Amino acid sequence: MPSTPKPRSNVAQMAPYVPGEQPGPGEKVIKLNTNENPFPPSPRVLQAIRAVDGESLRRYPSPKADAFRAVAARVHGVTPDMILAGNGSDEILAIVMRTFVGPGEVLAYPDPTYSLYPVLADEAESRVRTVPWNENWDLPVDALLKTSPKAIFFANPNAPTGTVVRKSRVRELAQAFDGLVLVDEAYVDFADESCLDLVGELPNVLLCRTFSKGYSLAGLRFGYAIAAPAVVNEMLKVKDSYNCDAIAILAATAALDDQAYAKKTWQAVRSERARLSAELGKRGFEVIPSQANFVFARCPRGNAADVYASLKRQGILVRFFDKPGLADKLRFTVGTTEQNDAVLTALPG
Amino acid sequence: MPSTPKPRSNVAQMAPYVPGEQPGPGEKVIKLNTNENPFPPSPRVLQAIRAVDGESLRRYPSPKADAFRAVAARVHGVTPDMILAGNGSDEILAIVMRTFVGPGEVLAYPDPTYSLYPVLADEAESRVRTVPWNENWDLPVDALLKTSPKAIFFANPNAPTGTVVRKSRVRELAQAFDGLVLVDEAYVDFADESCLDLVGELPNVLLCRTFSKGYSLAGLRFGYAIAAPAVVNEMLKVKDSYNCDAIAILAATAALDDQAYAKKTWQAVRSERARLSAELGKRGFEVIPSQANFVFARCPRGNAADVYASLKRQGILVRFFDKPGLADKLRFTVGTTEQNDAVLTALPG
Repeated sequence: MPSTPKPRSNVAQMAPYVPGEQPGPGEKVIKLNTNENPFPPSPRVLQAIRAVDGESLRRYPSPKADAFRAVAARVHGVTPDMILAGNGSDEILAIVMRTFVGPGEVLAYPDPTYSLYPVLADEAESRVRTVPWNENWDLPVDALLKTSPKAIFFANPNAPTGTVVRKSRVRELAQAFDGLVLVDEAYVDFADESCLDLVGELPNVLLCRTFSKGYSLAGLRFGYAIAAPAVVNEMLKVKDSYNCDAIAILAATAALDDQAYAKKTWQAVRSERARLSAELGKRGFEVIPSQANFVFARCPRGNAADVYASLKRQGILVRFFDKPGLADKLRFTVGTTEQNDAVLTALPG
Repeated sequence: MPSTPKPRSNVAQMAPYVPGEQPGPGEKVIKLNTNENPFPPSPRVLQAIRAVDGESLRRYPSPKADAFRAVAARVHGVTPDMILAGNGSDEILAIVMRTFVGPGEVLAYPDPTYSLYPVLADEAESRVRTVPWNENWDLPVDALLKTSPKAIFFANPNAPTGTVVRKSRVRELAQAFDGLVLVDEAYVDFADESCLDLVGELPNVLLCRTFSKGYSLAGLRFGYAIAAPAVVNEMLKVKDSYNCDAIAILAATAALDDQAYAKKTWQAVRSERARLSAELGKRGFEVIPSQANFVFARCPRGNAADVYASLKRQGILVRFFDKPGLADKLRFTVGTTEQNDAVLTALPG
């Protein structure tokens, strides 16, 4: 009798990425723990989905999501060969790792940032070098470069802090570096500035975008990279041949094409973010100024685990990170006015 | 000015998997080159898709596709923890590699088989050992074991040959091996036998299934593994947290739940396969007996490239593999009666 096959030792030891809790089917909660947009997607998305026919399901989809690439190129003022579509921006991040960072090579990132990066590095048998953020959440350019990395990743706006690094500072980093700089712009739709210009200027800057936040399509799994054509070409070799499904391509294309609708939701989130931040401040929270669709704040007595548990008992899910430096804070996804009011009311006095 | 970042050397040298040609939008062709099911998906699939609402798009999907797992467990008589859902069976194959076969370790497979396997090994920096099939397409058990592999992959029915290995022979291989045996059952719905029983018997057998062939959902990207819970658990660490989208989960669940509809399409394909095989034989083709939804056959004068080109000029796409041992043959996806008649009529006399 053979035994259970042994996984690779890195996998056996791997701590998987832990996504935010999901309520069970039918469970009624106010879910402000995974940074979804509180508003529904553009009506044009549902129209596109309802128009899907059996023939487009029966056949393989476009391997490179051509229709999406064309619209993304127009919206961003780049060429279609600078767009790589993926099954969520998590897939884009994984493809970047698999393309550019091999076993034993270094992935560097400022800490804290998106907690998926070390999981990807573990899978790749790459080495992780983390560097604390400079004061005021400034990018630690010199310290990052000193780690001799093959690639540098960071989220901008950052998660879970919501803080931003100015484009000029990202430019400094990329100009001084021969490896790949991945700017994870998952939350950029809620921010004042993007690093889009840098992609045209510099061959080593890659932006990662998602439909899960700004376009209210977390259920759909669609993200994309914007980078120089030479960078995209290498990544195309690594991705699955048909990594995006026909419905997701149609829906994401419709969503991106409806900028007017999306922008209305971003504006509403930004005003609620300002209100939620101010109200949390009044209640003794130390709020880090956020340009994302969430607010990261230190609880008045640093007892984030208790506040998290109290909110959960009242049917409100927020995000608690039980990690050094984070465990006194909670991350509140910005919800609708009603949802944010519910959180504020439910907070322990 | 930084230079273009260098990909990993294995990626730089990688020959990507080449999917079958896709006609452009609006181009009218009879497409028999990528083994789609010629019949539309179950009407219940379109009903499920039409019922999708904005809320299920706005929120993240079920990380493990719970609804699908429950139905798959019932249909196959296994437990839900033996099912791992993926973004197409290509993703399942990639997850298996990333979980079980590390850099420098050996992936073994009989040759020819699905041409994606070496691409996945290249990406993993694994070593490939190929072994020719025994006479009559019998599995070369001893020769595969002698390569000291970490895992052994093969398609059953095989691609591009359509031939099958009996379950008893797969059992012999798995019993004599401590690594993972991946039986890629992409085409099993058109065959006489599956290796499903072996998963319950042996802890090192993993089956890979897809909705692209038997369920007419190639556009959707959905596949799954059936394996022992301990094997699935390791793979769960490696997959993206939300690797299947909400619509694909709903649609695949509806399709799998409608076995009666799917079986009707499989029966129709099997009868057309018998007819197409016989008719090709009458025209001087040497047809390999197939249990898949395609027929692989040597052209009467071995001039497969010419026949391929002639059919293409007439608006019919079939698959030509320009590789040693395959370049005298063509692979014809079994189409509808009308499509198969069109191919037979268009063949050079």
